[in-house]
Amino acid sequence: MFSLSSLYFLLTHKDKQKLNVPFLVSFITVISYLVMWQGNFVTLSKNGEELYWIRWLGYMFSCTLLMYTIAGLIKSSPSMLVNKIYLTALVMFTGVLASVSDGNFMLAFFGVSTFAYILLIWPIITNKLAYTYVNYFIILGWSLFPVIFLLSPEGFSIIAQPVSAVIYLGLDFFTKILFYVAKPKDI
Amino acid sequence: MFSLSSLYFLLTHKDKQKLNVPFLVSFITVISYLVMWQGNFVTLSKNGEELYWIRWLGYMFSCTLLMYTIAGLIKSSPSMLVNKIYLTALVMFTGVLASVSDGNFMLAFFGVSTFAYILLIWPIITNKLAYTYVNYFIILGWSLFPVIFLLSPEGFSIIAQPVSAVIYLGLDFFTKILFYVAKPKDI
Amino acid sequence: MFSLSSLYFLLTHKDKQKLNVPFLVSFITVISYLVMWQGNFVTLSKNGEELYWIRWLGYMFSCTLLMYTIAGLIKSSPSMLVNKIYLTALVMFTGVLASVSDGNFMLAFFGVSTFAYILLIWPIITNKLAYTYVNYFIILGWSLFPVIFLLSPEGFSIIAQPVSAVIYLGLDFFTKILFYVAKPKDI
Repeated sequence: MFSLSSLYFLLTHKDKQKLNVPFLVSFITVISYLVMWQGNFVTLSKNGEELYWIRWLGYMFSCTLLMYTIAGLIKSSPSMLVNKIYLTALVMFTGVLASVSDGNFMLAFFGVSTFAYILLIWPIITNKLAYTYVNYFIILGWSLFPVIFLLSPEGFSIIAQPVSAVIYLGLDFFTKILFYVAKPKDI
Repeated sequence: MFSLSSLYFLLTHKDKQKLNVPFLVSFITVISYLVMWQGNFVTLSKNGEELYWIRWLGYMFSCTLLMYTIAGLIKSSPSMLVNKIYLTALVMFTGVLASVSDGNFMLAFFGVSTFAYILLIWPIITNKLAYTYVNYFIILGWSLFPVIFLLSPEGFSIIAQPVSAVIYLGLDFFTKILFYVAKPKDI
Repeated sequence: MFSLSSLYFLLTHKDKQKLNVPFLVSFITVISYLVMWQGNFVTLSKNGEELYWIRWLGYMFSCTLLMYTIAGLIKSSPSMLVNKIYLTALVMFTGVLASVSDGNFMLAFFGVSTFAYILLIWPIITNKLAYTYVNYFIILGWSLFPVIFLLSPEGFSIIAQPVSAVIYLGLDFFTKILFYVAKPKDI
């Protein structure tokens, strides 16, 4: 729902010959939520809760675009941009694998994903050009996703699936819409 | 069948250090038709007709290459080329989702796909550099695919699956082989 | 196991602003082996042996990166690099299809894959800049994969699945780790 409104909102922001990354991110998020709403790509956890692993596949496409924006803000070289996009895709793809796995394999894929995530964000948050603005969204936004993952039925089932879904929705709004809306004009 | 012959035909056209896009498009189409012929990736519609959703996944790869050619013809900037390739991929991916969905979700994914399609082709057909040649193939070729989709068992089952398959085959020949064969030498 | 160690080993090799391709190749290989170890993405052959088709999907991502390195060594133009990456991806994707297919379709996909493979490596091994070093790894490494495929249960079941798995492991070590370790400093 809110993704659809954001879509229109971002569409009106479209102006130049430049790639409209905010629109593409929201558009991919709309498609991802439609698929989750439909519920065709769902597996069941051991205790019968639904695992929406398709979420992480959607992030594989939307977050590589977010990373393209972030790499631009910190003036990454083209080869570092490619590196960041590969790492983002690997973080999310191993997230899909962790989401459909149980026990030790869940932990193994989660570990590999977290390892790639740290390789990804460390050079960003310690970058000399690092903007408080970017770090704020990465630390308070991106980094909460794996925490929710571990708490949800995808991880250790400490919170219920609908609760995690609402938190993910909030984080999506924060990292994919507010991120672009709040971007200072001068950077 | 005809894809295989076209493949050889296009191979002989290969000459320079340039990317042989026509060959790659035909080669991907051959693979896509082989998979459809095998019939492993098929779902059944409510009234028991076969839905070859893999077709749209093949288009995701072949049509992004066609769009690369078209973007070159109308001299798109690199960032507009990336935009067109993302939109083409999203049109086709939501086409896969529409193909395997029923009822309102089919319509929702079809709507999202069509929305992306209009965003994609509008700047092409209204481009100052637009060639009658390119517009001809887009309007009489590309734009008939969603029409056939709606008429076929993937949409409202007005025509039978084999009929739609034959029409898709003709459109594939038109947009993927004739398109390159008919390209005027001077553009 | 050995992939994990190589991962650490390659990580320590990371030094500059350059894309750390050897690390990404090993990291993707680790993920691929984790998935095969878990055994979730496996189909059974006619005579009940396990077919690890996910192997070829992993190669689709790791070998396109290896090809990026090779194209750099023989100084391919950007459009020839794109061509090589597309062909590598098509070789591996049709490898997935051959792996899950039987009989004539297995042979058809294997044939298409081999055709793309010859298109891919012919310009490399006949390149004026071709290094004995590169050709050695392609001819004694890459080219043995399709031979093992045909001998294994994926092909004609002449050798058992575990035997083929061990040979693949050796070839992976040779083409993905030794390849980077053995690279002469002056090229």
